[in-house]
Amino acid sequence: MPPQTRARQRLLIKGGKVVNYDLSVVADVYVEDGVVQQVGPNLNPEPSTGLVVLDATSKLVIPGGIDTHTHMEFPFMGSRSKDDFYTGTKVGAHVHVYVCIWAFSEGCLLDIVVKQLAYSEVHPQPAAIAGGTTMIIDFAIPQKGCSLTEAFDTWKSWADPKVCCDYSLHVAVTWWSNKVKQEMESLVQNKGVNSFKMFMAYKDIYMVNDEELYEAFSCCKELGAVAQVHAENGELIAQGAKKMLAMGITGPEGHELCRPEEVEAEATQRAITIANAVNCPLYVVHVMSKSSAKVISNARREGKVVYGEPIAASLGTDGTNYWNKDWAHAAAYVMGPPLRPDPSTPGFLMNLLANGDLSVTGTDNCTFDISQKALGKDDFTKIPNGVNGVEDRMSVIWEKGVHSGKMDENRFVAVTSTNAAKIFNLYPKKGRIAVGSDADIVVWDPKATSNLKIFGLSVIKSIELTLSVTKNHYHLLTFQ
Amino acid sequence: MPPQTRARQRLLIKGGKVVNYDLSVVADVYVEDGVVQQVGPNLNPEPSTGLVVLDATSKLVIPGGIDTHTHMEFPFMGSRSKDDFYTGTKVGAHVHVYVCIWAFSEGCLLDIVVKQLAYSEVHPQPAAIAGGTTMIIDFAIPQKGCSLTEAFDTWKSWADPKVCCDYSLHVAVTWWSNKVKQEMESLVQNKGVNSFKMFMAYKDIYMVNDEELYEAFSCCKELGAVAQVHAENGELIAQGAKKMLAMGITGPEGHELCRPEEVEAEATQRAITIANAVNCPLYVVHVMSKSSAKVISNARREGKVVYGEPIAASLGTDGTNYWNKDWAHAAAYVMGPPLRPDPSTPGFLMNLLANGDLSVTGTDNCTFDISQKALGKDDFTKIPNGVNGVEDRMSVIWEKGVHSGKMDENRFVAVTSTNAAKIFNLYPKKGRIAVGSDADIVVWDPKATSNLKIFGLSVIKSIELTLSVTKNHYHLLTFQ
Amino acid sequence: MPPQTRARQRLLIKGGKVVNYDLSVVADVYVEDGVVQQVGPNLNPEPSTGLVVLDATSKLVIPGGIDTHTHMEFPFMGSRSKDDFYTGTKVGAHVHVYVCIWAFSEGCLLDIVVKQLAYSEVHPQPAAIAGGTTMIIDFAIPQKGCSLTEAFDTWKSWADPKVCCDYSLHVAVTWWSNKVKQEMESLVQNKGVNSFKMFMAYKDIYMVNDEELYEAFSCCKELGAVAQVHAENGELIAQGAKKMLAMGITGPEGHELCRPEEVEAEATQRAITIANAVNCPLYVVHVMSKSSAKVISNARREGKVVYGEPIAASLGTDGTNYWNKDWAHAAAYVMGPPLRPDPSTPGFLMNLLANGDLSVTGTDNCTFDISQKALGKDDFTKIPNGVNGVEDRMSVIWEKGVHSGKMDENRFVAVTSTNAAKIFNLYPKKGRIAVGSDADIVVWDPKATSNLKIFGLSVIKSIELTLSVTKNHYHLLTFQ
Amino acid sequence: MPPQTRARQRLLIKGGKVVNYDLSVVADVYVEDGVVQQVGPNLNPEPSTGLVVLDATSKLVIPGGIDTHTHMEFPFMGSRSKDDFYTGTKVGAHVHVYVCIWAFSEGCLLDIVVKQLAYSEVHPQPAAIAGGTTMIIDFAIPQKGCSLTEAFDTWKSWADPKVCCDYSLHVAVTWWSNKVKQEMESLVQNKGVNSFKMFMAYKDIYMVNDEELYEAFSCCKELGAVAQVHAENGELIAQGAKKMLAMGITGPEGHELCRPEEVEAEATQRAITIANAVNCPLYVVHVMSKSSAKVISNARREGKVVYGEPIAASLGTDGTNYWNKDWAHAAAYVMGPPLRPDPSTPGFLMNLLANGDLSVTGTDNCTFDISQKALGKDDFTKIPNGVNGVEDRMSVIWEKGVHSGKMDENRFVAVTSTNAAKIFNLYPKKGRIAVGSDADIVVWDPKATSNLKIFGLSVIKSIELTLSVTKNHYHLLTFQ
Repeated sequence: MPPQTRARQRLLIKGGKVVNYDLSVVADVYVEDGVVQQVGPNLNPEPSTGLVVLDATSKLVIPGGIDTHTHMEFPFMGSRSKDDFYTGTKVGAHVHVYVCIWAFSEGCLLDIVVKQLAYSEVHPQPAAIAGGTTMIIDFAIPQKGCSLTEAFDTWKSWADPKVCCDYSLHVAVTWWSNKVKQEMESLVQNKGVNSFKMFMAYKDIYMVNDEELYEAFSCCKELGAVAQVHAENGELIAQGAKKMLAMGITGPEGHELCRPEEVEAEATQRAITIANAVNCPLYVVHVMSKSSAKVISNARREGKVVYGEPIAASLGTDGTNYWNKDWAHAAAYVMGPPLRPDPSTPGFLMNLLANGDLSVTGTDNCTFDISQKALGKDDFTKIPNGVNGVEDRMSVIWEKGVHSGKMDENRFVAVTSTNAAKIFNLYPKKGRIAVGSDADIVVWDPKATSNLKIFGLSVIKSIELTLSVTKNHYHLLTFQ
Repeated sequence: MPPQTRARQRLLIKGGKVVNYDLSVVADVYVEDGVVQQVGPNLNPEPSTGLVVLDATSKLVIPGGIDTHTHMEFPFMGSRSKDDFYTGTKVGAHVHVYVCIWAFSEGCLLDIVVKQLAYSEVHPQPAAIAGGTTMIIDFAIPQKGCSLTEAFDTWKSWADPKVCCDYSLHVAVTWWSNKVKQEMESLVQNKGVNSFKMFMAYKDIYMVNDEELYEAFSCCKELGAVAQVHAENGELIAQGAKKMLAMGITGPEGHELCRPEEVEAEATQRAITIANAVNCPLYVVHVMSKSSAKVISNARREGKVVYGEPIAASLGTDGTNYWNKDWAHAAAYVMGPPLRPDPSTPGFLMNLLANGDLSVTGTDNCTFDISQKALGKDDFTKIPNGVNGVEDRMSVIWEKGVHSGKMDENRFVAVTSTNAAKIFNLYPKKGRIAVGSDADIVVWDPKATSNLKIFGLSVIKSIELTLSVTKNHYHLLTFQ
Repeated sequence: MPPQTRARQRLLIKGGKVVNYDLSVVADVYVEDGVVQQVGPNLNPEPSTGLVVLDATSKLVIPGGIDTHTHMEFPFMGSRSKDDFYTGTKVGAHVHVYVCIWAFSEGCLLDIVVKQLAYSEVHPQPAAIAGGTTMIIDFAIPQKGCSLTEAFDTWKSWADPKVCCDYSLHVAVTWWSNKVKQEMESLVQNKGVNSFKMFMAYKDIYMVNDEELYEAFSCCKELGAVAQVHAENGELIAQGAKKMLAMGITGPEGHELCRPEEVEAEATQRAITIANAVNCPLYVVHVMSKSSAKVISNARREGKVVYGEPIAASLGTDGTNYWNKDWAHAAAYVMGPPLRPDPSTPGFLMNLLANGDLSVTGTDNCTFDISQKALGKDDFTKIPNGVNGVEDRMSVIWEKGVHSGKMDENRFVAVTSTNAAKIFNLYPKKGRIAVGSDADIVVWDPKATSNLKIFGLSVIKSIELTLSVTKNHYHLLTFQ
Repeated sequence: MPPQTRARQRLLIKGGKVVNYDLSVVADVYVEDGVVQQVGPNLNPEPSTGLVVLDATSKLVIPGGIDTHTHMEFPFMGSRSKDDFYTGTKVGAHVHVYVCIWAFSEGCLLDIVVKQLAYSEVHPQPAAIAGGTTMIIDFAIPQKGCSLTEAFDTWKSWADPKVCCDYSLHVAVTWWSNKVKQEMESLVQNKGVNSFKMFMAYKDIYMVNDEELYEAFSCCKELGAVAQVHAENGELIAQGAKKMLAMGITGPEGHELCRPEEVEAEATQRAITIANAVNCPLYVVHVMSKSSAKVISNARREGKVVYGEPIAASLGTDGTNYWNKDWAHAAAYVMGPPLRPDPSTPGFLMNLLANGDLSVTGTDNCTFDISQKALGKDDFTKIPNGVNGVEDRMSVIWEKGVHSGKMDENRFVAVTSTNAAKIFNLYPKKGRIAVGSDADIVVWDPKATSNLKIFGLSVIKSIELTLSVTKNHYHLLTFQ
């Protein structure tokens, strides 16, 4: 569709408080064709015809969230994650936010939530993630011995026809050879990839050893790409799983018992040490434990460049759920690394997210329904690993982080959007509302306070977060 | 002087790399009458007549530095600090930076506290601090029992006629009563003061006890002002000093021996505990030791809001100088809290400044010449406490922080300018180069590499930093 | 009573496993008149007539426990602690241990402070503390301005007529003057006192300030006495209590809320800093929080000599009890410093007790019955502070420490007896079973497993620990 | 030589202060045929004929030192360590101690030092280690794929004919198979071996991977043997060495640069994690860095059973020596893990040895002379790794630990002898002076103060420690 054949799409968001990560200011935002044109008081863009005006009075106008970590339609553990690039990114029904997204390709404006509007009334295709996230970064993951480029192309072919928001792909390095190195170079130069993830877990499947890690980190350093790591000691997991099964522990609790948090902390320490040996900045995906977070914080104090990514699940709930008597409930929380039984974990991670020791937030959104999870009903090692969160992430952080007083609205924007944009070189196109930025904008209602409960001295909002469409299929995490 | 009687002063800084704390971009900056009007590529402001053009090609264009901690012409310990508000803020001779400030006379941008002078009206040389700092924050310090407001007015009367850059004043709370509380309120509401400093040292002079601290912090919390603290245990210092003198240790080394770093760490911990009891954010001035910095970092990990301010001296040199055989050399380093003999201190503090555990930088610039320092030639407790740094701060941080690879140019801007602007509510008028900001701009030459020396494996620039005018009077710190 | 007028009292303990802190060995122990004469296999002391033989097969034969911290019949907070030197030290009904003490009347082994009574002379039941503790160290506490020596004599006069086990007295220093210093010297030289305790809490009652602490520590250092400290910031407690009451929080939970664990940690850090300034070893009584324990551990890593004393209550239960809906239950747990709501506290303290960071264990046994506690029914600040524990201490440590696998039987002996004997200069007369040692011997049944409950994966014995005689009066802590 | 053919050898050590790890007491010690018979005041053993009497007045009588870590005549890196079981254990010339050893096999008494007696005057063969160590534990190290039992027998065949003190052997596990497991069992049951060491360094030579470590630890746990580990990441060392050589760094400094302390800390953390996964106590040999020591301390705080062994070299000197301009000097310090350039390392390790975080001390004595070291003159990776220390260890700890005030004489005995005896199940036969113990006794002169130097405020004795016989061959560490 040649641009000249249609009118410019023009939007004016009036009267909101524009919240960037460094500053909040009451201002209007004027957008044309998906790009911010003006930010300031009392904007009055001409012509007034054809201008969609959205009143954001007493609302926050924030950069769209960036979820750094998803696995849509991921073929994994004998199954395939339930959310595909369509259902995982489209609009759901969320009580909490106004989502207002100016999508990047053709510019589709949605004002969906307050009115509980069916998106079909506004636009024929759903085009945004409910929950306030306007970009996801997924993972293209080749099998050992297989081409990285082919994996990238495959994932792209899944996403392109149906994804409803901006997206990008990290690429996994699951083995090592000269060919891998060349493909990494080529992906960076020709495909815009700028991040690679290595697994220290999933022995015999994705796991790389220390030598391969060293090579991969060296290559990332050379290319200027971000090195990411799934930090768990795969050998200990394998041994631990054997041990648990031998002891007759086959339920979801065995999943955590076989890989306690020191298994995560050990690998985190090792990855940092190896990365530092080649002066390569390191990005630790899904920080799930206090132990691992401490390792990261300590490394940062020593001047090492390490970024930690807690996820919605580790910030919003904990591993006591593995002991839930309802198998389906417990199995829903199975992911790797596991959530931790220590109930002070979420609060601790949120503290570090607030003070700067942890940097960004993702979800590891990789959903399986109950029939898929049931593959492991007699053996926890066969339960497909993965949880939800892509829709819930921003609400969880708002509730546990901002509402609780741990961070202000600016830090909220930093950890849900800006920092990710910076690390993955999208800033200030993404992650900021400023002239010239992409109009990835969310109108956020800070006062949406439903279902107040009193815990101790502080008021915490209890949120029922569900993916509405598939509610009857999923056993979703409940963030308390 | 009515604005219309003179032409606008117009400046175009061309071709530099504009470095803000979140982003660097090659762009021109166009300034009118001290305010940034445009930032972008290839600016061509009309008319070209009357336009001063400065070529900044291959230079960095950064927000002017903010020194959060100076004591100009401070009456202290039987003497008065040598740098007054004129000599302490005017241009010296510095090899490293081009200072370019567009000043104008009418703009009282921040009510009372920020003042800008047309340098030409005050003195024949351009009015700015050599070294790249364009704003200082000094301290008005009443005696015990005396009025805070009067102290504020006194300091202001010293500064206004001669200060050559923007300045502001913290006010010290050295005793407690209802009147003090009322004056704090009045200073905040009527004078634009937004920070108060309490001393835990200088027993019987400025020191307040825990009860007074509690009251002062409570009041700051109520007013929304920043609570600052000089954190050393004054009782232990008094006892330690007696002990040293009794042992016959009268030289400058006694200054450190009587108040080792745990004396600083203890008070830091106590101040944080008391501040936290009233939910008051805390700003710890002059962080001098690893111990104290660790206390601050740990508190931040627990979710407490604490800001640490290392200074040029603690980042650039160490307390081994107290054992220098030249008394004048050793005495020049006497300040409270003292520099620390542990030679790894500066590097450690710089690591924390880089990773975010420490927030801003000042200098505690409070210079005394040799004849003043000599008041304590037979008794270290009588050596006037104070060092230089206001001119050296930014170069020290550049050399030790950026050149060494610990931080990038953006973090450099954050810790020399932006973070201070945010904490003291000057942002984004100060601390950022953007449309509408004050034109407190420094053109910084990142390649000015003179006098290379090799230390170990890394190349570190040796800088001869001196206050040129008074060189023959001072015994200045040498930052190695 | 001249020894020759009565027959020697002779005891043979056969077949037990003699457990000292460095070694366990199966051996007989032969005792005459309260002193161990032989330790070895197959002892056969002559003559066999008049020999009491106790079969200890499959039992542990351990040095009697030393409770380093009790307050019997203490006049405090408008009341007087319920356990006096008789009821607090006599035999109760305990399911777990055989207590076997060979007492005799003449042996004033440790000058003034150690006294042993023939139980038969005092009362019809054998004189020993149920629970395995054979010596307590109580506190003589003068009011501010009053004589230390008189306090010592007063407490002694209370104890001597009725105490049923060995005892000794720490003396508190609650104010400072030259007279206090002279009394400290005199108590050390003439009364065998070797430990002094200073309070940093109880403002206006017992609290000393930093200057007084400095003087007291200096004096202890000079005398070679052990300096003890109750480490809480009394100023913050006073302010916090006011705040809670102003908020309408009058129940027992206010007791903890007004003095959270950082109040304890702050004072601990300060005490260590001051003590270290005069090179004085420091003994921190009743370590109640993880924060405080960490401060102690960190100081030890820096080479400072600090001993931490957790107590039965902090090792065996936690501060969640303050929120118990039964006021009497909650009030029973009120002591200062309070137990901590963090449920991982007891396990953490036990870890440090096992690894050596914490050294000894006491109880702060200072019991009040419900009518006494009720003095504070409308105002938690008036609830008499104190808990039980003198009977329970060894069982709690056995269950939580040894049974759980954290320590072995030798470390158990170290932390319940030997280390205390060493610190207070009683070793090896106390704290060891060896030839020449006092026959303070406990026969301990390691297999006494009643009321097994399953918590998670480990088997923990649930113990109902009560002071039997007064059960209907007391609201005692339940150790879970 | 049948015992009955010769007279009993009888020794009386009179008037010394007998120092055990828990207690010091002035007492005589009477010994017959290598076993302590009596300890007490004024001993007068009959008959007086044939009794050797040694006056130990004003001396300390301590248990003989146990060096937990030596490599005598070790075939390693293309050479063989210079000290064999004879020269490494015989008497040298040491200025500092009276060595008095009652050797285990035939009982040879030496009183060599005060008189600088040529040992030949006393006994035809030298029979003890100068320096106060009376037992060493060496390592039998099979090549990958080779029999552990054969290695044990080989080392034993080297030692037995010539060793001059008690010795024992750890056995290394350098590969894994069922046969290895069976041999471990057999060595424990039939040869008295109770400790096995695994290497995480020396890639392709001795290094085992995580899976092998897991198996070995499991087996140790099962057998009740002590699991030891050389903790360095062998992969990183291999890569680092390549990198250094590629950069043209071939000298001894490259040895440290290619394996900085985080390489040691990483492996230490990993070993502890793996050991803990199978509940196996862990013994970390040669703790060389602050980082690694912190890892151990932290693990202990979490309740893990970990023992750390610093060595004479890491306690007495540091890695700045690798930058010494004299190649031979620098090369003499090459060992793995390397000494650390951070000059605060020795003091830090001594602090932890004093407070209990570190447990025992060895030396890694594995000496090479200059011609052997020269194998690596063009390539640091070929310099045979090893330092001296077996003679110096106790003096180093005395000087740096006791003389400096960090530990008392009892802790000195604990860390040089008793703790090793306990861990390796030799206690109380070794490690204690008591009736029935082996007469491994050293008479130590605490006042031997020669060559005083002043460093800062503390008086530290400068000791020239050399292996006298081979002085012209060796480039020995100098402990400052």
